[in-house]
Parts: sequence; structure tokens; C-alpha cells
Amino acid sequence: MKKYSIISPEIKEVLKLPDKTEKLRELFKDMLPRDSYVLAEGLEPEEIAEIIIALGQEKGSKLLEEFPVNEQRDIFTDLPYLLQKGILEKLPTDEQIDLVKNIPKKLASKLLSVIPSADRKDIKKFIGYAEDTAGAVLTTEYASVPADVTAEKALLLVRDQAFNRETIYYVYVLNNDKKLLGFLSLKDILVSPPDKIVSEIMHTEVITSNVNDDREHVARKIANYDFLAIPVVDNENHMLGIVTVDDVIDVIKEEHTEDFLRHGAAGDLFDYAGSSPAHVAKHRILWLLILVVMGFVSGTVMQKYEAQLQAVVALAFFIPLLCDSGGNAGTQSSTIVIRGLATGEVKIKDVFKIFQKEFFTGVIVGGAMGILGAVRAIFMNKDPLLALTVGIAMIATVIVATTLGAILPFIFKKMKLDPALMSGPFITSIVDIVSLFVYLQCAVWIFN
Amino acid sequence: MKKYSIISPEIKEVLKLPDKTEKLRELFKDMLPRDSYVLAEGLEPEEIAEIIIALGQEKGSKLLEEFPVNEQRDIFTDLPYLLQKGILEKLPTDEQIDLVKNIPKKLASKLLSVIPSADRKDIKKFIGYAEDTAGAVLTTEYASVPADVTAEKALLLVRDQAFNRETIYYVYVLNNDKKLLGFLSLKDILVSPPDKIVSEIMHTEVITSNVNDDREHVARKIANYDFLAIPVVDNENHMLGIVTVDDVIDVIKEEHTEDFLRHGAAGDLFDYAGSSPAHVAKHRILWLLILVVMGFVSGTVMQKYEAQLQAVVALAFFIPLLCDSGGNAGTQSSTIVIRGLATGEVKIKDVFKIFQKEFFTGVIVGGAMGILGAVRAIFMNKDPLLALTVGIAMIATVIVATTLGAILPFIFKKMKLDPALMSGPFITSIVDIVSLFVYLQCAVWIFN
Repeated sequence: MKKYSIISPEIKEVLKLPDKTEKLRELFKDMLPRDSYVLAEGLEPEEIAEIIIALGQEKGSKLLEEFPVNEQRDIFTDLPYLLQKGILEKLPTDEQIDLVKNIPKKLASKLLSVIPSADRKDIKKFIGYAEDTAGAVLTTEYASVPADVTAEKALLLVRDQAFNRETIYYVYVLNNDKKLLGFLSLKDILVSPPDKIVSEIMHTEVITSNVNDDREHVARKIANYDFLAIPVVDNENHMLGIVTVDDVIDVIKEEHTEDFLRHGAAGDLFDYAGSSPAHVAKHRILWLLILVVMGFVSGTVMQKYEAQLQAVVALAFFIPLLCDSGGNAGTQSSTIVIRGLATGEVKIKDVFKIFQKEFFTGVIVGGAMGILGAVRAIFMNKDPLLALTVGIAMIATVIVATTLGAILPFIFKKMKLDPALMSGPFITSIVDIVSLFVYLQCAVWIFN
Repeated sequence: MKKYSIISPEIKEVLKLPDKTEKLRELFKDMLPRDSYVLAEGLEPEEIAEIIIALGQEKGSKLLEEFPVNEQRDIFTDLPYLLQKGILEKLPTDEQIDLVKNIPKKLASKLLSVIPSADRKDIKKFIGYAEDTAGAVLTTEYASVPADVTAEKALLLVRDQAFNRETIYYVYVLNNDKKLLGFLSLKDILVSPPDKIVSEIMHTEVITSNVNDDREHVARKIANYDFLAIPVVDNENHMLGIVTVDDVIDVIKEEHTEDFLRHGAAGDLFDYAGSSPAHVAKHRILWLLILVVMGFVSGTVMQKYEAQLQAVVALAFFIPLLCDSGGNAGTQSSTIVIRGLATGEVKIKDVFKIFQKEFFTGVIVGGAMGILGAVRAIFMNKDPLLALTVGIAMIATVIVATTLGAILPFIFKKMKLDPALMSGPFITSIVDIVSLFVYLQCAVWIFN
């Protein structure tokens, strides 16, 4: 049904035409902001600025919103001053704050001094909130009505607010002091008899978020309740703004990225694409060095068995295999448990059940791996004692690994740390030490 | 603002009272479905069924919807027949399908024969779609209007549909043949002059999904465009249903879980909590055995250097450290690249830029780790040649690991495989082989 007749490289040609303004307006006429973005993405900031100039405040601000914040900054600084002012006014509060934080300080304070005082007050009020709180992601463009009007009047009030609200599908009922009294969906208003008073039809048990709540917490609330938005209030229940469902998706994505990176011991979320190797290295080095130091222990364990290794040097051939196998089995079980704890499929009280499950899983997979390892040892060295040692050590290592990998995330969770910090590499390092000890001690028993 | 005075264990007491029906109704009176769920979660299916019986069709079906599908099944089969019928009718199409698929076949066909024919037709129509397509997650409860009515009339039509639609905030314009002509938001209708004709105010460029589209694709569309819902059509543009934003969040979560598990080499998504160890083992064993076989190569490499290991047995002490360090550095860079490819922060064309970045990152972190490793070797064995070998091998290994970890996901992506399959354990196994070769070859050069 929906087709646009232009592709990205052609835009560069259009930008060179003398009548580019009309051409650009024509091109982007019926396009949704997202499609305009897909088309403009990859152009230089100055070129995107030219498109925004052609589109004007209204459509231009919608297009600008689609870009990531670091690109927004570059495009925005390329716009003429009056358009900067106009666009800043058009943006919802959370986007205004992101932009003001990122553009040069001088430009920011100049713009802040000329925009309407309501916008200025909102920006100044919320710019101080920490980046991961509700205060930093809310928007003040919500619809509200007083409690003492009729449903019919409320519908008219909402209609009048429709043009500059993020959503009018949720309507908040406030008193003169802006305290939140209740909540209505637009549907509630529509289906109610026109002469009913708002206070009679509103829901008074409103699920709210505090302005200082963690934004992940807010996102999870919206997602769990299947809301389109949630009101944000201060400690005295004054309405400050709303967080909408589209922000939730972004938050959930970031949260997942964080877990993913932590589990790969790759540090916290940062702008990888825009960072130098030195900066990337800074993000990773701490974990790597900690793991190197943990690796020292494995050397010490081996040193204790120097005589045995000297006597049967072939023992060493299987060390990487054993260590890796333990690490792999442990990574698998920790991955499942960490993810289960994050989604709620696994709960702290399940720890014993999971221990049991992982123990028996370890017996099964360890058994299979032990047989495979022993067969390999027989073919490689024709030494049945070595094969026996490898087989037994493999089984023991894998059982220790699956159970340890499953239990450690619980311990982290119990200590109020993110279970995802229990990374694959961390588990591997711990399991290695155990594997080496089990393997070499088995060797001592079996060969002597 | 919102407080309920009851906690979960108390419910069990309430269920024993002779007047439990009234007590339960009182308890759950003003509660949102999600809060009712939180309260009832953890009870036995029969107990939850009793609550649903007390709450009746309307509120009962909302509560049932909150449970995961396997629990839904157990609760549902404990309900009396008439309530089963009533609840099945109340559910949106996608939930109906999930339930019908999961309850015993006999019960399903019995229920299907008695529910209204419109519901039956919908269920039979969409139950055949593959689980991961739009057809399997859509609901037919959308609001629609004809093209030739006025805005005023359209508002009345929507109001009349309000009670049994998933959302009335998006309104679809259909012809007599149910072909999709256009789309209006409820806001568009509200703010338009009452006597305007729908066909004049509707948007005709509608973003749609095909019924056979992958649901991840549909979810991404809704998220990218910040829609509340997207219409699903067949190849002739007949309107079949809508997918709503709350489904998107579930899809995104599952997608992330899949990536997370794959990167931990923990197999695909499955019901971990409900699986036996044998079943869990089945999910993991393939990867583990593949990795064991890959580990054979490291043994072969070491065997080639048997003489060197025999001569300087202390060389073996640093093998786990080196292998782990390479694996860790490779896991870090692969984690970042896999995640970047999934979120779109990293694109295929960036491969050379990323190779460079990871190479230099490897030089920096490898340098630091090499120094630390060499210092350790000096203290442990007082042998400067050994320390030199460990240091050089560490640097080389880490550089190979960071670059390989970054490049392999690109190769998977290029081969149209999920880059997340390039798991930490897989990278570790490959890097191990390289590390051992580099380390032992360095030893030969340095000691001889």
C-alpha cells in the first residue's frame, strides 16, 4: 500500500537543485517521520539540516526527534537560530532536555532565555534529575481535566488540548494545586453518559511513578500493566508529567544491552561506535586484569603437581580441553539462570530446585563428554590410565561447572548485585581452578 | 496513592471461608488485572480457578490472560464448563488461539462447537498460522468505520464499538469487501470538523504488516514508528486484524532472551522451569560435544610441542591463563559486536573500521595483560626467558582474540546466520588453538 518513489542517494542530487526547497517538501509530504529518517539517515549533518530547513518547524522537529542524540546535536547546531528556537519549543520535554544537555553551553543558555517561560521552567525543573530516573524521561505534555466538569465538557477540553499533547488517550484529573485526583481513559469519557461528572467516572486508584524512580522500574510497570503511559508524581502526589509506552521500548532495549554486555564481561553501556581504541580499552581492561589475576591461581595449582606433570607430560595435552569444557558447561547454566532471573521465570526461592536440576543435567552431559574425552585420549596416547583420568575429571568438572554456574547468579542476586555480572569469563576462571585440581589429583591417584 | 491491604498467603485463608465468594469479590474489586495476578501467582491452579469462578467471566478472563500459557491451561481446565465457554468468548483472538492450542483436544473441539460462529471462524482461520507470524499474534477486535460517513458519525460508531475492542484509538477505514482504504486516529476524528467526510480526513498511506510476516519484523515496525497498533492484511489488502504495542514488548523480550541464550551457547528458547534434567541436557549437549571436538585440536597442537614441554615443564603452568585471557578478550569484543549488530548501532559496512578499532584495543589491553603475566612468571619461576615467552604470547593472543571476536559475528551475519550463534564458548575454543600455537612456538624460538 505504501511506497515512496525515492531512494537515499537521490536525495544528495535533490539537495544540489536550485528549487530544492519545493522539491524536498514535495518528497517528504506524506511521509511519516520514521520513513523520512530512514531516507535521511547517513547524510551529513549539514545536509540533514537543509532538509529540516525546507520542512519547517513542525515536520522538521518530528524528523529531528528520530535521530540519536549525538546526531541531533550536530544537525541542530547547523540550523539557523530562529529555527533552532522554533524546534526546541516544539519538542516534548524529555527531548528538549536531551538536546539542551548536548548542544554547546552558550547556545543552550541563549536559547533558554528566548523560549516561552513555561518551556524554560519545565526544562530547568527536570534537567537536574539523574539520567536513569523518571524525571529525566517524562514529558509534561499530558492531557488533564478538572474533577467537577461533565463528561461532555471533558471531551471538549481534551479536544482543545489535542494538538500539543504526547497522548490524549489517557486523561488525568487534577485539582487546582495540580494534585492527581484520578485518571480516565479517553474511552471512559466517550462511553459515559454526557452529563455524568468526571469525579463520578474517574478511577481513583491510579498506578503512579515517583519522579525519582529508576526508569527501568517505570518501564517495567508500564509493560506489566499494558499501559500506554504512566503519570509521574512528586512525594506530595503533584502531577509532574507522563512517561509513554514508546519510551519503554527504548528502556527495555537498553536494559537488555546492559545485561548482554555484562554477561560477556564487556563492561557497561557506552558509545562504542564513537569511541577510540583507548576508550574502548578503558572499558574492558578492569575485568580482563581481574581475570588474569584469578588465572594466577590455576598456575599455582599446576605447580603443586609439577612432579606428576613431569612424569606424564601427556597430561598437559588435555588441560585446555578440560578447562574449556568446564567453562562452557558453566556458561550455559549461568546464562539460563541469569536470563531467568531477569525475566522472572526463575525466582530466588527456586535455588534448591535449580541446583538439583543442574546437578543431574551435569551428570548427563558430563557423562557424554567424559566418554568422548576418554575415547580421544585412548586414540591419542594409547594409555588407558590417562583415558580414565581424563574421563573421570571431565565428568566431575562438568558437574561442578553446571551447579556452580547456576548457583553463583543467585548469590549475586541475593547480595543485591546484578546477576549478569556473573559473566561467562568469570565462571570460566573459577571453574578452571576446580578442573585443574580435580584432574591432577585424579592423575596422582590413578597413576600411583 | 494505591495500596491493597492483602498479601498472598492470606488468600489461602480466604479460600477456606464459607463466604469466600463475597470475600474474594470484595478483595479484588478495584484491582487491576496485573495486581490480581501478582496476588494470585504462586497459588495452585485449582485455587486460582476458584478465584476466577468468584470473579465471573468479565474480570475472570482478564485475570486469566495475565498468566503464562502453560499455567492458563491448568487453571482453565479446572473451571466449570459454562465459565470456560464464557471466558473463551471474552478473550481476544490471539489469546483464544493460544488457549485452544494448549488445552486437551477434546475440550477444545467441544468448546469450539458452542461458541459464537464469528469467534469460531476467527480461531479456525488464524490457528493455522505459524507461531512466529503476524497471523498468530493478531487480534480481530479492532475498530473500523466506512469511508463515506461524517466525522461526527464515525465518532458515534467508534463509541458503540468501544466495549469489545482491544483499542479504539486507531480506527481503520474499510470498504464493503473489508479492504483497507485508510486509517484514522481517534484524535484525528476528535479534532476534525464534525461534518467532514471520513474519506477526506483519513490517511491513505497506511503502514501495514502482511499476515505471514515474521512477528519480530512486525514488532520492530511498531516500535520504530512508535505506533500503538499496526493493521495486518492479506496479499489483497483485506484487513485481518491488528497487532498491538503490548504484544511488541513481549516479542522484544523473547527476541533478547534468544540472543542471550545463543551467546551463552545455551541453545534456543525453551521452558526451562518445566523441563527435566534430561530435557535440559538435550538442549545443551550438541554445543558441548561440538566444542569438545574442537578442543581436540588444542591437544594435537600441544602434542607437536611435546619435546619443548618436556624440557620446560613450567611452560604448562601458564597455559590455562593464556587460553582464558584470549577467550575473555574475544568474548568481550564479540559481545559488543553481536549486540551492536542486533540494535543496528553496528552495520555490516563498518567491518573494516571495527577491525582496526579492535586491533588497537587488543594492543592496549594485551600489552597491559602481557606485562602482568610476565611479572607473575618472573615471581613464580625466576626464569626471564619464560617470562618473556608468556608476555609476548599474551600480547599476540589477545590481539588475535579481539580481532577474531569482532570479525566472526560479521561473517555469520553475512552468511545470514544469527551473529549471536557466535557464542563466547565458540570464540574461546577457536582462540585457544591460536594461543597454544603462538605460545609454544614462541617458547621454541626463545628457549633455543
